[in-house]
Amino acid sequence: MSNSSSERIVEALRTWIATAPAGAQLPSTRQLVAQYEASPVTVQKALRTLIGQGLIESRPGVGTFVRAIRTARPHDYGWQTAALGTPAHHIPNLSSALRTTPNDVISLHSGYPDKELLPQRLVRAAFTRAARGDSVVDRPAAAGLPELQSWFASQLGAMMPAGLTAPVASDVVILPGSQSGLSTLFRALIGAGRPLLIESPSYWGAILAAAQVGVRLIPVPSGPNGPNPEDIERAFVQTGARAFYAQPNFANPTGIQWSTQLCESVLQIVRKHGAFLIEDDWAHDFGITADSAPLAARDDSGHVVYLRSLTKSVSPAVRVAGLIVRGPARERILADTQAQNMYVSAALQAVALDVVTQPAWRTHLRSVRQQLAARRDLLITALAEHAPTAHLESVPRGGLNLWLRLADEINLHQLTVDCESRGVIIGAGDHWFPAEPAGRYLRLNYSGANPGAFTEAGRLIGQAIQAQ
Amino acid sequence: MSNSSSERIVEALRTWIATAPAGAQLPSTRQLVAQYEASPVTVQKALRTLIGQGLIESRPGVGTFVRAIRTARPHDYGWQTAALGTPAHHIPNLSSALRTTPNDVISLHSGYPDKELLPQRLVRAAFTRAARGDSVVDRPAAAGLPELQSWFASQLGAMMPAGLTAPVASDVVILPGSQSGLSTLFRALIGAGRPLLIESPSYWGAILAAAQVGVRLIPVPSGPNGPNPEDIERAFVQTGARAFYAQPNFANPTGIQWSTQLCESVLQIVRKHGAFLIEDDWAHDFGITADSAPLAARDDSGHVVYLRSLTKSVSPAVRVAGLIVRGPARERILADTQAQNMYVSAALQAVALDVVTQPAWRTHLRSVRQQLAARRDLLITALAEHAPTAHLESVPRGGLNLWLRLADEINLHQLTVDCESRGVIIGAGDHWFPAEPAGRYLRLNYSGANPGAFTEAGRLIGQAIQAQ
Repeated sequence: MSNSSSERIVEALRTWIATAPAGAQLPSTRQLVAQYEASPVTVQKALRTLIGQGLIESRPGVGTFVRAIRTARPHDYGWQTAALGTPAHHIPNLSSALRTTPNDVISLHSGYPDKELLPQRLVRAAFTRAARGDSVVDRPAAAGLPELQSWFASQLGAMMPAGLTAPVASDVVILPGSQSGLSTLFRALIGAGRPLLIESPSYWGAILAAAQVGVRLIPVPSGPNGPNPEDIERAFVQTGARAFYAQPNFANPTGIQWSTQLCESVLQIVRKHGAFLIEDDWAHDFGITADSAPLAARDDSGHVVYLRSLTKSVSPAVRVAGLIVRGPARERILADTQAQNMYVSAALQAVALDVVTQPAWRTHLRSVRQQLAARRDLLITALAEHAPTAHLESVPRGGLNLWLRLADEINLHQLTVDCESRGVIIGAGDHWFPAEPAGRYLRLNYSGANPGAFTEAGRLIGQAIQAQ
Repeated sequence: MSNSSSERIVEALRTWIATAPAGAQLPSTRQLVAQYEASPVTVQKALRTLIGQGLIESRPGVGTFVRAIRTARPHDYGWQTAALGTPAHHIPNLSSALRTTPNDVISLHSGYPDKELLPQRLVRAAFTRAARGDSVVDRPAAAGLPELQSWFASQLGAMMPAGLTAPVASDVVILPGSQSGLSTLFRALIGAGRPLLIESPSYWGAILAAAQVGVRLIPVPSGPNGPNPEDIERAFVQTGARAFYAQPNFANPTGIQWSTQLCESVLQIVRKHGAFLIEDDWAHDFGITADSAPLAARDDSGHVVYLRSLTKSVSPAVRVAGLIVRGPARERILADTQAQNMYVSAALQAVALDVVTQPAWRTHLRSVRQQLAARRDLLITALAEHAPTAHLESVPRGGLNLWLRLADEINLHQLTVDCESRGVIIGAGDHWFPAEPAGRYLRLNYSGANPGAFTEAGRLIGQAIQAQ
């Protein structure tokens, strides 16, 4: 009788617990005794059963409570597979360039500069100033803070020759980072299933954004001098594409800067085909022995859509990019970014503007240039000595990366694993090809932490190559 | 001879100016005299010609410079129309809910609470603290800061009854605002051309995101008690939809909160159809006479995908939302948001977490509740007195809006213009319907600036209605 009575209380309390919030207190033993007309022993037994089942917990001297931490049970989400179906466009896994790694390894894989290359003092001061202003509680216009729009426009305008109409603030759309910008550009200007020319190799983030949108990438091979105008011309003719995505200055990953002649040829080709050049000036602030010379500064006919990000040079926390685009294309881009983002945090826009308009920003950029030169040369020297078979086609005049070709016999996956086991993380080049890789390549970023270890890194990479 | 000589110099300088950056200084008159073997008068004449053409400017005592501000000339971007083609999906214009307005009008149209309802002190203190920490120079993991993921999970977990498995930090994806979340959800879970059930009326931002993605919206009428389960069931059967987007708590614009019974019915229906419920808990922090009771707290089977934003309650500058989603759907969502955003600013995530974990956050929310109650009641009273034909179907128990039905004879566009000319900006209800509006509705937001003017606003709206 005591048993069945205890079971009766267990059942009743289970029903109660099932709808009670976690942490809810059960009635006291005395109340339960009265409520269920049972003995204290029977009530205690019922409570012990529920404790054993993980449904409640006793806190001595306080009471008994519905358990906050529930026992995990395996779930079957198989129904989702049917609901989701196969994806319309397959989005590849994230590149290794975003991996975070322990401190004790030498990281040459990252796409982001180390903190010591960031204007940390300026960024902190700008956030502190922003905290006192309106930007941290305001909602800005969808196209951005006018002052920041104006800054992006004047930066490009200052590089334009007389006779061309410089962009104005209202030609600029502020975006929450260049990745969002690429996604929006590919959606608004190209669209799913339609062709887009792209250098091969090219930035993996652009390849990723194209996959998300479902754009059909048309690779144009890029050699030591950039893409060949004849290849671009042929690709436009054969595919009917209306846009070409490119990084004419210090391209990621190759570091190539287009010659003036190539710039002019490409401009002629896009004009002839009534097409856009989507110019990603990602490394504008990372010139080393040259300055970035945007194609957009040679065009006022709306053919060049110009994207410049501050995320890499100001701070990864300041996700702000400026897009300069003229004509109806701007409306279409603005409609997409509004539907995607509404607007960009005014606080981040204010911080970005604050940093880039400080006199110390120029000083900082000069210091970064010197540091990048020293880092680049240190890594080149180490590789030349210890990994002479890794061929550097050209010394980059800007940007953050070395792009090295290895012998075709090299197993790149094995090399990556070998290097990692020796304590160096490298970027296998395959991610930077929109289609099949044209060879075995490494991308080594010289802007990561601990450049003092570059010589050692060169030695370890050399060993790993030798081991094959 | 002097004339032709001057023309020769003009031509030569024009060529030079065409490739010179804006602001470049011309050689001095003396140098030009020597260079072109011409008289000072001839050189001066050439310079005057170029000044007249707007190509250079003279700064007395300093020198002559390539003009920075160029004469604007009209551009023909017509070629872009051909390059862009017609859009695959038409994105509607932005709603009036995002309009910014002068201070001297009474704004009842906005979707965002006034600054005085924001935890301004907490937000400023959090930005100041963030400026000293690592978040302003760090790059976080793609899914978000673990502590913030954990906070979103625990918030929902605390509302779950025992017996259900509470979400954990790794079930959460941090997104740069709920608009970005909706866009990502519609792309990742539904896709272009596929059907999605939506309440009618419903949030215009969701309608906008659906347009961007090209999702086919299937309206389910929502009355004073929310949608009818039979309508939902029928829509699932007829369209083969695999998802239903809804705001079960304090829906925008109607303010309706679903009953427990309706919640259970909808859960049963989505489970039966192997479908998702996309629950947008946009007003979680804006309960007035009730608390938000998420459906997601009743489900651990992965059928409810739960979106909660902090943008409206913390600050429009803190674009941070948490998405709780379990099963393979999470992978697909994460892939999309990575391709779109890479990651969310660690600084904004740190600020959001700082604010919502301060003891003063609770105090703030209690104060907001009281203020919203007073504002809501003030506007209801004013409308009842001065605009008795504007019918309020239900007094909202939370949220920021009144949803009023007007007589069918009312010309809504005319009413909006009339009100604006009287100094009140109202939200015409049409934007909140995914298809044709079911009647003449107004959405009046009571969280804007200057609630002291609500009585006057009611009077002016009443006058404008009377005038028709």
